[in-house]
Amino acid sequence: MALNRSYKSPSRSAGLAPGELVHIGERHSDFTEITIFDFDAEKCKEEKIASPDDCAPFRDVATVTWIDVAGVHDVAVVEKLCAGFGLHPLVIEDILNTSQRPKVEDYGDYLYIVLKLFEFDEVTAELEAEQVSIILGQGFVISFEERKGAVLEPVRDRIRRGKGRVRRQGPDYLAYTLVDAIVDSYLVRLEELEEDMDLLEDSITKGDGSDVIGPLHSLKQALIEMRKSVWPLRDSVGTIERSGGLLFKEGTRIYLRDLYDHTNMVIDTIETFRDTLSVLMDIHLTSMSIRTNEVMKILTIIATIFIPLTFLAGVYGMNFKYLPELEWRHGYATFWGICFMVAGVMVYFFRKRRWL
Amino acid sequence: MALNRSYKSPSRSAGLAPGELVHIGERHSDFTEITIFDFDAEKCKEEKIASPDDCAPFRDVATVTWIDVAGVHDVAVVEKLCAGFGLHPLVIEDILNTSQRPKVEDYGDYLYIVLKLFEFDEVTAELEAEQVSIILGQGFVISFEERKGAVLEPVRDRIRRGKGRVRRQGPDYLAYTLVDAIVDSYLVRLEELEEDMDLLEDSITKGDGSDVIGPLHSLKQALIEMRKSVWPLRDSVGTIERSGGLLFKEGTRIYLRDLYDHTNMVIDTIETFRDTLSVLMDIHLTSMSIRTNEVMKILTIIATIFIPLTFLAGVYGMNFKYLPELEWRHGYATFWGICFMVAGVMVYFFRKRRWL
Amino acid sequence: MALNRSYKSPSRSAGLAPGELVHIGERHSDFTEITIFDFDAEKCKEEKIASPDDCAPFRDVATVTWIDVAGVHDVAVVEKLCAGFGLHPLVIEDILNTSQRPKVEDYGDYLYIVLKLFEFDEVTAELEAEQVSIILGQGFVISFEERKGAVLEPVRDRIRRGKGRVRRQGPDYLAYTLVDAIVDSYLVRLEELEEDMDLLEDSITKGDGSDVIGPLHSLKQALIEMRKSVWPLRDSVGTIERSGGLLFKEGTRIYLRDLYDHTNMVIDTIETFRDTLSVLMDIHLTSMSIRTNEVMKILTIIATIFIPLTFLAGVYGMNFKYLPELEWRHGYATFWGICFMVAGVMVYFFRKRRWL
Amino acid sequence: MALNRSYKSPSRSAGLAPGELVHIGERHSDFTEITIFDFDAEKCKEEKIASPDDCAPFRDVATVTWIDVAGVHDVAVVEKLCAGFGLHPLVIEDILNTSQRPKVEDYGDYLYIVLKLFEFDEVTAELEAEQVSIILGQGFVISFEERKGAVLEPVRDRIRRGKGRVRRQGPDYLAYTLVDAIVDSYLVRLEELEEDMDLLEDSITKGDGSDVIGPLHSLKQALIEMRKSVWPLRDSVGTIERSGGLLFKEGTRIYLRDLYDHTNMVIDTIETFRDTLSVLMDIHLTSMSIRTNEVMKILTIIATIFIPLTFLAGVYGMNFKYLPELEWRHGYATFWGICFMVAGVMVYFFRKRRWL
Amino acid sequence: MALNRSYKSPSRSAGLAPGELVHIGERHSDFTEITIFDFDAEKCKEEKIASPDDCAPFRDVATVTWIDVAGVHDVAVVEKLCAGFGLHPLVIEDILNTSQRPKVEDYGDYLYIVLKLFEFDEVTAELEAEQVSIILGQGFVISFEERKGAVLEPVRDRIRRGKGRVRRQGPDYLAYTLVDAIVDSYLVRLEELEEDMDLLEDSITKGDGSDVIGPLHSLKQALIEMRKSVWPLRDSVGTIERSGGLLFKEGTRIYLRDLYDHTNMVIDTIETFRDTLSVLMDIHLTSMSIRTNEVMKILTIIATIFIPLTFLAGVYGMNFKYLPELEWRHGYATFWGICFMVAGVMVYFFRKRRWL
Repeated sequence: MALNRSYKSPSRSAGLAPGELVHIGERHSDFTEITIFDFDAEKCKEEKIASPDDCAPFRDVATVTWIDVAGVHDVAVVEKLCAGFGLHPLVIEDILNTSQRPKVEDYGDYLYIVLKLFEFDEVTAELEAEQVSIILGQGFVISFEERKGAVLEPVRDRIRRGKGRVRRQGPDYLAYTLVDAIVDSYLVRLEELEEDMDLLEDSITKGDGSDVIGPLHSLKQALIEMRKSVWPLRDSVGTIERSGGLLFKEGTRIYLRDLYDHTNMVIDTIETFRDTLSVLMDIHLTSMSIRTNEVMKILTIIATIFIPLTFLAGVYGMNFKYLPELEWRHGYATFWGICFMVAGVMVYFFRKRRWL
Repeated sequence: MALNRSYKSPSRSAGLAPGELVHIGERHSDFTEITIFDFDAEKCKEEKIASPDDCAPFRDVATVTWIDVAGVHDVAVVEKLCAGFGLHPLVIEDILNTSQRPKVEDYGDYLYIVLKLFEFDEVTAELEAEQVSIILGQGFVISFEERKGAVLEPVRDRIRRGKGRVRRQGPDYLAYTLVDAIVDSYLVRLEELEEDMDLLEDSITKGDGSDVIGPLHSLKQALIEMRKSVWPLRDSVGTIERSGGLLFKEGTRIYLRDLYDHTNMVIDTIETFRDTLSVLMDIHLTSMSIRTNEVMKILTIIATIFIPLTFLAGVYGMNFKYLPELEWRHGYATFWGICFMVAGVMVYFFRKRRWL
Repeated sequence: MALNRSYKSPSRSAGLAPGELVHIGERHSDFTEITIFDFDAEKCKEEKIASPDDCAPFRDVATVTWIDVAGVHDVAVVEKLCAGFGLHPLVIEDILNTSQRPKVEDYGDYLYIVLKLFEFDEVTAELEAEQVSIILGQGFVISFEERKGAVLEPVRDRIRRGKGRVRRQGPDYLAYTLVDAIVDSYLVRLEELEEDMDLLEDSITKGDGSDVIGPLHSLKQALIEMRKSVWPLRDSVGTIERSGGLLFKEGTRIYLRDLYDHTNMVIDTIETFRDTLSVLMDIHLTSMSIRTNEVMKILTIIATIFIPLTFLAGVYGMNFKYLPELEWRHGYATFWGICFMVAGVMVYFFRKRRWL
Repeated sequence: MALNRSYKSPSRSAGLAPGELVHIGERHSDFTEITIFDFDAEKCKEEKIASPDDCAPFRDVATVTWIDVAGVHDVAVVEKLCAGFGLHPLVIEDILNTSQRPKVEDYGDYLYIVLKLFEFDEVTAELEAEQVSIILGQGFVISFEERKGAVLEPVRDRIRRGKGRVRRQGPDYLAYTLVDAIVDSYLVRLEELEEDMDLLEDSITKGDGSDVIGPLHSLKQALIEMRKSVWPLRDSVGTIERSGGLLFKEGTRIYLRDLYDHTNMVIDTIETFRDTLSVLMDIHLTSMSIRTNEVMKILTIIATIFIPLTFLAGVYGMNFKYLPELEWRHGYATFWGICFMVAGVMVYFFRKRRWL
Repeated sequence: MALNRSYKSPSRSAGLAPGELVHIGERHSDFTEITIFDFDAEKCKEEKIASPDDCAPFRDVATVTWIDVAGVHDVAVVEKLCAGFGLHPLVIEDILNTSQRPKVEDYGDYLYIVLKLFEFDEVTAELEAEQVSIILGQGFVISFEERKGAVLEPVRDRIRRGKGRVRRQGPDYLAYTLVDAIVDSYLVRLEELEEDMDLLEDSITKGDGSDVIGPLHSLKQALIEMRKSVWPLRDSVGTIERSGGLLFKEGTRIYLRDLYDHTNMVIDTIETFRDTLSVLMDIHLTSMSIRTNEVMKILTIIATIFIPLTFLAGVYGMNFKYLPELEWRHGYATFWGICFMVAGVMVYFFRKRRWL
């Protein structure tokens, strides 16, 4: 499971004026789908809308409104939608540029949260990093995914079926729920990575040894990438939890602490996996070198035993006119005797020095 | 002594609503056992109760009440018990989910402490991490272990027999005593690990060399795991000691400082062990490579001495019609003379260059 | 793409009195070109001036004035220009000494910003670090480049064509825009480095293996150099954003936060590249050693099979008078039989031990 | 000079109630010796006392009293003495448990200082860590050593002979002097370690190479152990110097700053030694591998030159009926000619490729 | 250019009472030379004085007085001089003990600055660390060098010739100028080290390879030593710049900021050099191992080709009575044919596997 390297895009915006709007990143979806959830504890309305203008009526209602946008490549749609809710141009720029660093920014009457989501792409068999932007305002939440993904589905479900607390709480709890769902999905991804690690561990201890370096390093890169996404997120969550944006009510604050713990757990797990990976690497390298050493050692020993014997055979193959041993009655037997003796002494010596 | 990897479970809660209650983790015990200790300096009542409802009478008494729960897999029991004491749903969720990170959380009128306990499992010969949750409230302490373990037994004993200060102090001192007992148990575990390290050191210096990498790395992993448990604990203890939860009385604060020192000592010991492990690893690798080099060197030297001699023997084994040396009276003796001379020169040369 | 090492120059000022003015660094340009942009939202005047004295009329106008200087080797011109705007001698010294560390210094009524710019030199095929100094004062911005480079061209263009916000904002926004353009150019440079890394990765995985170490290390050095330029810049930007120089208006502050995010992104990318480089290095070293090991192993195996056989051939080449096997009818065939048997046993043994 | 590993003891207190008093650690002395120094600028009384009760008269005198205790294994004596001065049970526990981490604890009307002392044990040739506890109260200092050591002797001497400032200052200066004497003794120990390092360096550069790894690692461990003792001490000294315990008078504060500098110097020296040790390790490993490589290279070259020649000799030892060269008049001479030519070409080739 | 290890001395003061005065360190000069510069903007008097008592008249004059002392081994002279200006005994002790750590200490009415100076000793060809102490008081500056060095000469010159600002400013500016001159001299030393590094780089890339490890490590040690001197200096300068000793006037504060930047530049350069050194080390080790591998590989290949052929020659050298091939008319030619075929197949195989 390799990670699709995502560090190719950021520079595409170089040369643009700040705040100039273009979509930056891969296009993960062909159309933009806007779904509106408008709910309170009693009722819930779910509606797909065609144009960003259709959001207007939901803006100032007393119920909680979640505008769930999938697909951010269509600059016009995103801009219109955001402008309708009075978002700053830099926010819109960040939503469109999918190479943001996770962060939480407080714009006074709304909070802008960016995080990464990792989805396993069945086609390329790669872990793809996607960007999710969440706007938490007074009475509404807007979320932007790069495509309609499975990670937020349980949240949608809980809203539809009125399960859990989400329907009875305000938009701040909804925003928390969305972030929590994404953080939980990291743990699922880590579990998948762990399965790969277990397979690797097996093939290392079995020692077929061929294709271990590549997978090890792509796992390492994937962990580095996830770590890069969780570290800033943790800091941001910690900051809101402590100093508190005004948009998070006191009652929701306790859930942020829980979220902070979860991000800590993700980081701990990532660090543990990194440690495990480097242990695996060490074991692989050591066992590879042990094996090679063993091969070389035993083979060299065999060679060394025979080299003096071959010399001796060479000696009695010489054609000197006067070579008395050749005439001896038991010369040949003596030769074999010496051979076995030499070999025996050497083996004894090797054994004594613990080389065999 | 390997460590049963505990990083498999956390993701099982992904997709659940926050606060939804399920037991997460291995099931270490088949039934939930609730024991109540109700004591003051004069008297002590110990009672096993069957249902969480039986705790109610102990809630508002003037004496100190310790509700000692072993086994957290039964969601209904834990929930009922906690609800009876007015605990927050997130606390109940954390008690049930045994993959928590050690932490201390202040909920105003009670303090929630989570830590890890390492028990040596005789059956699997592995070090198992278990979670202990401690609730310190006004007049009561509730503790949740995954199974009835030996680590807290001395505390129970001291309460029963009125030994030490615990009977004369409030619930804050009891909570401190429980945490202290667990931190002390880390030192016992470390001592067991040290015995394994000593065995390893012996087999490394003796140089039988076969099975060293595996144990070294599993020791390293065990230390990493313990470290992960003690670091956040130390920070939490430091925080209560300094800023002080209201639940800890001034007189108990001094014991927290002592506890803080103990966690520091555990961390120091872990770090020393890690250093020692990496030194052992280095010694192992170096001595292994020294041994291989020595084998290769001496063997190559032997081979090299004989190679020119074998060539010479080959020369006088040639069948050239005109090969004058073969006719010489002392040809054969001269051959041996040359052989000894060549070998001598080479040995001298090797010795001079300090290769022998 | 190697980096022209820039650490040669700093000491040239040793022995000078502080504030004594000399140009330190390579001379990147032959003449000093001063261009003045004087604009507000409605109109924009661009003018090349011959002498620093010609700046005087622009000093106290209500419009925004950008004095864009290319070439800092001419001490007299720089000094006169700076003195005209009342800059401190230490600032002038720093402008002339192109081996400054990036920093932002608040001199009360003006702000002095130094940063590095990396340009790819087509002639030497090297990445050259140049210094850009920016003075942000009341109503004016002065920028000093070492030569007229392409990086600030888009900004000049936007001013000329009234594109973007720059014409409608004050000098603080202009200063921000200049810094932003330079930070964006880092991403472009990083993308070029990435192409080199991709080429390297190809030649490593293909394993032609000849010239990998050199390029790897020069890439590493280039990243170290860029990192050294961005880290202090990030801290400086963070400091103005938080504590805020008075010269940055509230409305521009939000753009500084964005700039801070960009520098963070550059740092993240650099760190990722460094990780990738060390992974490439590891893969290179490992695959090189795997290849060598393989060569040695198979060759040694071949040698080892033939050594006992050669001994045997030697034996039957001996000239002993009494050597019964030589007389046997099937002696020769038996010899070959033994040879194949010995070889077979060895191959079997090697295979069984997974050495083949 | 190896370090007697001191990490064996801490767990022995596990299972005890906090504050329960037992002696933990090795027994370095057979009896407890209590000496009292009672002095002011004019006079000094030195007295060996038999029972802790004899200290009572010294408690409230106007002069400075130093109770100098050697040997802490006798729980009863230590407890009685400490109780007489109103020390907290946790302090007594820490004095008895000689596996404490260095620390300074402020108990309001007295200060408790723990540090480590390293003495070179002539018998075991090992560096032994011992614990020194110092209590600084109003008008008195109590010090506990594990045995009567040489390190504090100069202080005793200066008091007896009225040398230096110690007789003219209060108990705070005495406490400072004791700590200072111990910190200075670290430098003496480091100097002894340095001599060992110099010996090692010699044997590494000479390249006898046999017993280098072991001493290197035991030096490293000794440095790690010392570092573990000085780091927390430095922090503690820094804390009293800055925030200032009330027990240290303003005039003594300046000496604490000096002490802080000394601990810094010790840490710097330890770090430098660690750097030097790792450099030595590197040099050792590199030179060892260079030597092996050289051996292998030259030997392989010799072997390779003779292998084709041996083949040739083998060819002309063949018994083919028709083998024309054998009949040649100058066949044998030609053979030798070819041999020298082949050897020459190979040597030339090796030299050209710089392998020789 | 090796560094004369300076970590030998500190312990010599162990056992002395704090504040007891002895000279510690190497004796770099045979006599103590005291020069007095007494100047203001108009006039400057330079005078060599014989006894410390002669300084008295300069103490309370309105002009700036610089007492420039070279040689600190004469305890009596230093003590008398310092006592005359009312310096604290600990300061005198630190001036005499030349193994101080760089620091800045504020004693209220004077500031004590210690730093290191690196001079290249022509005789020993080593970089020698010397200590410079600077006392900044009201109206005077006292500097102590270990010997009259070249580094402060430009400052003396500027005072004599009235060049730069130094004559028009107070003693704080003079103290700054002295420190600045020393920091600038670090850059000169670094440049000299760089030349050594360039030479090393050449001999590494050329690959003569004999004496690289030693110089690399002594360069590394020199950098470590310099780093140890600059880090604490930077922190001290930063502290005075921010919190400001009262002795530095507001106008000089800006120069301290510049000085702080310079120390940062020195640190950056040192870090870059360290990176470069480790890159050089890597390149050296890698290219050494590549070369050895290549030698071994080609030689092994040659050996391997001839081993089967030698076996074959051995076979036809056997004396079996019945060995049909020997009788063949074209046996010998066939033998050579087989030889070339075997060699060809092997070379083809090696080439295909990219081993040749």
